[in-house]
Amino acid sequence: MLLIWLSIAAALVALGFAGFLFWQLSRVKIADEKVKIVSNYIRKGAKTFLLKEYSALGVFVVIVAIILFAMSAFSWQLVLTFLIGAGLAVLGSFISMKTATLANAVTVDGCKKSLRTGMRIAFSASSIVGYVMAALGVLGVTVLYVIFKDIEVLYGLAFGASLVALFIRIGGGVFTKAADIGADSVGKMEANISEDDPRNPAVVADSVGDNVGDVAGVGADLFESYVGALVAAVVLGLTFLPLFGLRAVSFPLFLAGLGLIASILGGVFVMFNKKGKVKTTFGLGLPIVSVLMIIFMLLAAFFALGSFKMFGAAVIGLVAGALIGLIIYYYTSINQKPVKIVAKASQSGAATNIISGIAIGFFSTIVPVVIVVLTIGSSYYLAGIYGVAIAAVGVLSVVGISLTMSAYGPVVDNASSIARMSGAGSEVRERTEKLDAMGNTGAAISKGYTIFSATLTALALLIVFGKMTGLAEVNLVSIKVISGLLFGALLPFIFSALSMRSVGIAAEKMIKEVRRQLQNGGIVSGQEEPKYNRCVKISTNAALGQMIWPGALAILVPIIIGLTMGASALAGLLAGAIVTGFILAVFMANAGGIWDNAKKAIESGLYGGPGSDTHKASVVGDMVGDSLKDVAGPALNILIKLMVIVSVIIVPLLMS
Amino acid sequence: MLLIWLSIAAALVALGFAGFLFWQLSRVKIADEKVKIVSNYIRKGAKTFLLKEYSALGVFVVIVAIILFAMSAFSWQLVLTFLIGAGLAVLGSFISMKTATLANAVTVDGCKKSLRTGMRIAFSASSIVGYVMAALGVLGVTVLYVIFKDIEVLYGLAFGASLVALFIRIGGGVFTKAADIGADSVGKMEANISEDDPRNPAVVADSVGDNVGDVAGVGADLFESYVGALVAAVVLGLTFLPLFGLRAVSFPLFLAGLGLIASILGGVFVMFNKKGKVKTTFGLGLPIVSVLMIIFMLLAAFFALGSFKMFGAAVIGLVAGALIGLIIYYYTSINQKPVKIVAKASQSGAATNIISGIAIGFFSTIVPVVIVVLTIGSSYYLAGIYGVAIAAVGVLSVVGISLTMSAYGPVVDNASSIARMSGAGSEVRERTEKLDAMGNTGAAISKGYTIFSATLTALALLIVFGKMTGLAEVNLVSIKVISGLLFGALLPFIFSALSMRSVGIAAEKMIKEVRRQLQNGGIVSGQEEPKYNRCVKISTNAALGQMIWPGALAILVPIIIGLTMGASALAGLLAGAIVTGFILAVFMANAGGIWDNAKKAIESGLYGGPGSDTHKASVVGDMVGDSLKDVAGPALNILIKLMVIVSVIIVPLLMS
Repeated sequence: MLLIWLSIAAALVALGFAGFLFWQLSRVKIADEKVKIVSNYIRKGAKTFLLKEYSALGVFVVIVAIILFAMSAFSWQLVLTFLIGAGLAVLGSFISMKTATLANAVTVDGCKKSLRTGMRIAFSASSIVGYVMAALGVLGVTVLYVIFKDIEVLYGLAFGASLVALFIRIGGGVFTKAADIGADSVGKMEANISEDDPRNPAVVADSVGDNVGDVAGVGADLFESYVGALVAAVVLGLTFLPLFGLRAVSFPLFLAGLGLIASILGGVFVMFNKKGKVKTTFGLGLPIVSVLMIIFMLLAAFFALGSFKMFGAAVIGLVAGALIGLIIYYYTSINQKPVKIVAKASQSGAATNIISGIAIGFFSTIVPVVIVVLTIGSSYYLAGIYGVAIAAVGVLSVVGISLTMSAYGPVVDNASSIARMSGAGSEVRERTEKLDAMGNTGAAISKGYTIFSATLTALALLIVFGKMTGLAEVNLVSIKVISGLLFGALLPFIFSALSMRSVGIAAEKMIKEVRRQLQNGGIVSGQEEPKYNRCVKISTNAALGQMIWPGALAILVPIIIGLTMGASALAGLLAGAIVTGFILAVFMANAGGIWDNAKKAIESGLYGGPGSDTHKASVVGDMVGDSLKDVAGPALNILIKLMVIVSVIIVPLLMS
Repeated sequence: MLLIWLSIAAALVALGFAGFLFWQLSRVKIADEKVKIVSNYIRKGAKTFLLKEYSALGVFVVIVAIILFAMSAFSWQLVLTFLIGAGLAVLGSFISMKTATLANAVTVDGCKKSLRTGMRIAFSASSIVGYVMAALGVLGVTVLYVIFKDIEVLYGLAFGASLVALFIRIGGGVFTKAADIGADSVGKMEANISEDDPRNPAVVADSVGDNVGDVAGVGADLFESYVGALVAAVVLGLTFLPLFGLRAVSFPLFLAGLGLIASILGGVFVMFNKKGKVKTTFGLGLPIVSVLMIIFMLLAAFFALGSFKMFGAAVIGLVAGALIGLIIYYYTSINQKPVKIVAKASQSGAATNIISGIAIGFFSTIVPVVIVVLTIGSSYYLAGIYGVAIAAVGVLSVVGISLTMSAYGPVVDNASSIARMSGAGSEVRERTEKLDAMGNTGAAISKGYTIFSATLTALALLIVFGKMTGLAEVNLVSIKVISGLLFGALLPFIFSALSMRSVGIAAEKMIKEVRRQLQNGGIVSGQEEPKYNRCVKISTNAALGQMIWPGALAILVPIIIGLTMGASALAGLLAGAIVTGFILAVFMANAGGIWDNAKKAIESGLYGGPGSDTHKASVVGDMVGDSLKDVAGPALNILIKLMVIVSVIIVPLLMS
């Protein structure tokens, strides 16, 4: 129990530190009126979206809670933890958004002083997001474990977190892409108004989108991965009771607590170190946390369990996650070969741009698959299935800093937009753009953690499912399992198609609205202010309308397959979905990133530069990639975990 | 044994009939000099390609034969049947090409007389392809079974056929796309010379490509599917010995023989019926054969086995294959909603064209997956694993007419090209185009058979593999199997990427050559003849260079995984590859067809018609789709079967 109390203490420290940083942030008075106004628009837009989303979510959550109550033979504990999971995800995403939308203006303000001040502000704001989400995850699992001592009740927590995460991810993704396309295609292409121009009616929605997609969305995603991984590890830890006693259960929770401490120490370094280059200081954050964490893991494994094998499993997870992130970085970096090949292919037109992007994107899944196989193989070799779960916890032990890196992108991106919209000096704008570039590697690695941890968590939970159903042997070479596998492999494709279609529908509405507003000459000439809020509302409503189907399917398909075709078909379904979901998610992240940066490379002057035919070809790839990498791909992670959690929860029903 | 002798007799009848048709075809003297010249170019080009391909193939086949000899503990029988399988595939593809390249000119000649004559000639030529390939398949399996009475030796036959089929498919696909892109992008876009203009240096290579890709490629593909399905059914039939005696083994072979007879009868109707509309006569071919086949199946099941269950399984396969074909037809037909949606989306540019094509393509995999699950589920319910194999034979029982439909497309396409290149009158050209349109439904259905039969055959063989290794229980929820599954699911993506890259490399070389030749003013002005042969050679060499990797991988990966990770991981590998391979193949066929016809719909006047921005956007989709549907997708079928066959063959090695 000591280990658990220590974790709870660590989580409280992290929350306290986050509170301190937030207090610091909110103290800053913005002098520049224009910055204030623009930032206020974004803040209000984000609030509008979130409140609407929460009320839509609320209805869905209540319905699911009622069904859950009935299906679990009236287990009020399960329903309670489900509601707590959903509530924590909502709370965390709300705090994150609040922080991010407050920080963007303060970052612009900081950049007026110096690059370092700007970086420190953006980083500390992102840290708040990281610490709060991670701390809520640790607190949720540990406190509920302490209260109930019943592990199965914890599935409710993971379920609630997953459900909310899926909604926020998809809703946020659809919102941001609709706004993005609206701002780009009408504003930029038709009316020749840049996407950062205050006369562009979709400009505020675009900035709001960055926050709802990348801050709230990624936050909720990693939060639920974290909860899922901890729950899986705790459950699998029970199988190690004979060897380690209850410490097998508390060890993963302890690791999570240590991860928070490491993240805080790394954050303190980045925020308070005043020597050396700003870029170096920033770049050292993630490595410092990782090295600290490896040391902590070693000590924890030795003192808490007396087993170096667990140290091995945790480190394997951590290192493998970083490797996948580096692969993503390699494939999507503007300085590396893949992006250059696609940029070059754009010279012969949009078709070759697309074909080469798809081909390289497909190739880019090889190494990540090999890494997953090596990770599960070696961690299994070290400590059986428990080892796999510990590896998943290992990946997520640095979730604090990893989330920080994810949130950093949109904060700085927003700051850039605000700087331009408010007509800040070129020095400030250069600084915000430098800040933007710094975040690239970290963001790629963080994306790697997200995808990888989702897969490991899902695999660990699949094994939990196998154990619970007593299907120690699910015969792959049977018609039922193969049928399940086929359906499972199909699901990621359907989900991707659903979200791509949603973006199309939402974008069309947005384009119409922007076009309508721009017919008003007063807006184009700058005498009249565009109705930003209408665009935010359109994106909001479209996004909310599109969340229902994927959410319902993720819950219903496992239940239907499980009840009609049995547990072994359901196991096949999960395995199929995890495997193709992982491959598609990596493909979409990479291909999308490659197209994005191929366009940027050409915009920076390659092969004819902006306005050339090559550039136009690359814009096509970028738009295709956007709907893959920002909406379809990220939702796959959550889809997979949600399906596994639902399956684990309905086990008693399947067995009866 | 009577049943087997009857099958052999049916195969000999089919060969005789094909010989008769060929004799009729070769008797025709072409009067038009220009037609003769153009057709000669195509014939020579095709021969150049095939001979080169066969010699490259020869080396590879010999190497594999040696490895096979060593790995099978020096089983000369296995090596012999392997060589026979390879030889039959080579022979069949050669006869098919010979026929198709002879028939194109004769079809033009026939169209000068009447539409019916043209149709009859094109159809009879395609029938030759269908009968020869199907008859060789039946003969190969039956005769070797009679000689060796050892079923495992038959795997060699399937292996040889698969290997050659993979090479011909990929080689043909790369050849035809490189020529196509060369003719289109330089000739049409840069020099404003149509792809059918005799001044276009790539025009002959383009027509040759139709033959090597669609006649030789599809022929070899269906041939090896057929052999694989028969072998699987014969092997699984052994498990039914107690119930039906040896007839369980000879029944699938007998069904195949009956299929040949049904195909001949249907063909006779189409070729010799002189009443009614030409289009109706043509369209009735496939339905007549199918109905006849259902009656035959009923009689065969009743008299040979006394079991209606086998009738059920065979009919399920046949009907399900046709249904998948109809789905493909629905999705890719120019008159249906999917194509219209994508055509409409092209109005907002190439990006929305691509995104909507991908989304609808993903959606289009749902029903086919459901059909596969229902097919394997119901045929398994009727007659266990043997039922699944019988269903696979059921799909392929109409392979004669199905191959006819596949070969019909390129024959008529070539005739169209020759008509235009030789400056034939508008009446003739209209007729050849009418012939072209008639083949669409049949081609789509035939595509459905190809993909579906490959999947069923592979699944049946996977179950054979499970039985042979004694892995009656391959535990899905184990690290090894999941690892295998991950690798397996990855392979179709890698293969697709490899073939897409190959097309890119080959197309680039072709573009350079076409550009080089067109710099010669004499060619553009029509005074000098382009060097067609150089383009053929470039496509040939590029295609051959690109075949090796995929072929080697398909053979090596199962061996390496099997030997290092064991039989259960290999089972996972196969299952993963079959499942994602099927889904990707359907996606690629449908998305490619949708983009193709969306472009054609716009060319026929929709949304601004030819030359509009919408049209340009749709051309991008068409080019992306081409490399998916004509190269990457089709190769997946063979990849999957080849891997399963290799796995079955190395079982003794895995067990020792």
